[in-house]
Amino acid sequence: MSSALIHETTEILKQMQEKICTAMEICDGEAHFREDRWDRPDPNSGDGGGGITRVLSGGKVFEKAGVNFSHVHGTLPADMCQLLVGRAEALPFEAVGTSLVIHPLSPMVPTIHANVRFITVAESAWFGGGIDLTPYVLFEEDVIHFHKGLKAICDRHNPEYYPSFKKRCDEYFYIKHRNECRGVGGIFFDYLGREAPLGVEQYKQFAYDVALGFNELYVPIVERRKELSYTEAQKRFQLLRRGRYVEFNLVYDRGTLFGLKTNGRIESILMSLPLHASWEYDYSPEQGTPEATLSEIFKNPREWV
Amino acid sequence: MSSALIHETTEILKQMQEKICTAMEICDGEAHFREDRWDRPDPNSGDGGGGITRVLSGGKVFEKAGVNFSHVHGTLPADMCQLLVGRAEALPFEAVGTSLVIHPLSPMVPTIHANVRFITVAESAWFGGGIDLTPYVLFEEDVIHFHKGLKAICDRHNPEYYPSFKKRCDEYFYIKHRNECRGVGGIFFDYLGREAPLGVEQYKQFAYDVALGFNELYVPIVERRKELSYTEAQKRFQLLRRGRYVEFNLVYDRGTLFGLKTNGRIESILMSLPLHASWEYDYSPEQGTPEATLSEIFKNPREWV
Repeated sequence: MSSALIHETTEILKQMQEKICTAMEICDGEAHFREDRWDRPDPNSGDGGGGITRVLSGGKVFEKAGVNFSHVHGTLPADMCQLLVGRAEALPFEAVGTSLVIHPLSPMVPTIHANVRFITVAESAWFGGGIDLTPYVLFEEDVIHFHKGLKAICDRHNPEYYPSFKKRCDEYFYIKHRNECRGVGGIFFDYLGREAPLGVEQYKQFAYDVALGFNELYVPIVERRKELSYTEAQKRFQLLRRGRYVEFNLVYDRGTLFGLKTNGRIESILMSLPLHASWEYDYSPEQGTPEATLSEIFKNPREWV
Repeated sequence: MSSALIHETTEILKQMQEKICTAMEICDGEAHFREDRWDRPDPNSGDGGGGITRVLSGGKVFEKAGVNFSHVHGTLPADMCQLLVGRAEALPFEAVGTSLVIHPLSPMVPTIHANVRFITVAESAWFGGGIDLTPYVLFEEDVIHFHKGLKAICDRHNPEYYPSFKKRCDEYFYIKHRNECRGVGGIFFDYLGREAPLGVEQYKQFAYDVALGFNELYVPIVERRKELSYTEAQKRFQLLRRGRYVEFNLVYDRGTLFGLKTNGRIESILMSLPLHASWEYDYSPEQGTPEATLSEIFKNPREWV
């Protein structure tokens, strides 16, 4: 794999982190990100690398926001290689990625998650990533703005991307035991370029556009909603849906489970969890309420564009 | 398998549910359990059975308490039979159990979990279960009372039970990715009687003693602590430890994962989750605080008796 591509991607994904943190601090107007630089502690295996974790807590707008950059390398176990590249042997790998989850304080502002990664295993290389939105109060214009923005990024590269990646997003962020999606989706893509005869290079600009397009998708929504007042019922629903967010991340999310099972840096993996979440026995929203409408959308994903 | 033993065990485990719910309502002094009777919805497979779920919410003493009885039967998939009885074929099974988690409002009162179950797969049959305690503020006399009580129940049957089942409890309720136990342990046993030449019958009295011994272990602790006032720091620590409780249940607990993966009744499975839980980035208690002492105990389980 060309080390020039890894180098370039690393720079873009660091920019992604930097740009997003700057924008979130401006949106918040009060709190700042703290930064933890960490090394991957695996001196025996020859594995290495590390990351930069940035977390903002207790802001005026954001209750908890984590933006993590990491760049790690080493040897991947045979079972993972079988899964990823169809070869049942331990192989050298390198992975660079930025991932984030932003949990606002107000239920009027949706939670958002984004991740862009570039992975090489032996001679194979691919991009993966996605962005998805989890509102607690439905403002249709916000969801449409978000999906239209994603479609515009996708369409610049391939008109088939948006419908395909939108569908994969609904399938991926699905809480099977609840028969519902985590939120209103977005896009999700993986293994982009892994089997491409012309190589992975041709997909980089799409991945970079997703990485650097985040602020335009999210900041207008935050700005429109951050000053709105809200009710107890809206806050309660937010906490219950954050419980579902925790269920998804701990039971299904591949990145989280991979991290937990391979001794990743726990605090960076679990920074995606909300500050507060709740579980009420046998809760379901009353028919006819906005919470019931939104829950129906989680169960039956819509086309927004 | 003798249907007389299943019948008797069913009666005892219903009594367990009844006795514990009655005691918890008396401790609480205000709130009452609601009851949901449910059937196992699997009409195509010939599987059947059902359960009685009782939940108390928003009490003066208990924030959320769930006590579930279930009695189900049907055909167990080959992979589960391989795991449980070493035969890779689908086999008839029957399972009866009562399980519960009590989450008090005050951090001065510990959370408790208990479960007693009797399972038959083809000709094999065994008892399993356990009780474990999760305090948020350490009162050593409470933990000693709890472990002494468990040891007394065990010693009535076999002096090797307590040391063996105490160790298995520390091993089972272990949050691997945090390198710590969920709480201060208790006892955990499984497959009791599965390979016994004299059959499972000889173990029933031990299982019944655990099932019916719960109140004496827990009620005195609740009564001693329920009126105490507490600090913001103690409440914060309780919420963070409840986050760890959620992590254990969703990532490791076999009963929870089995339920999620086999279309169990979701609300009965996840009633174990607390009303409120929280996650702060990179939290660790300040050295020298009571929270630091208790965290140290979670990392290095003590002998309490």
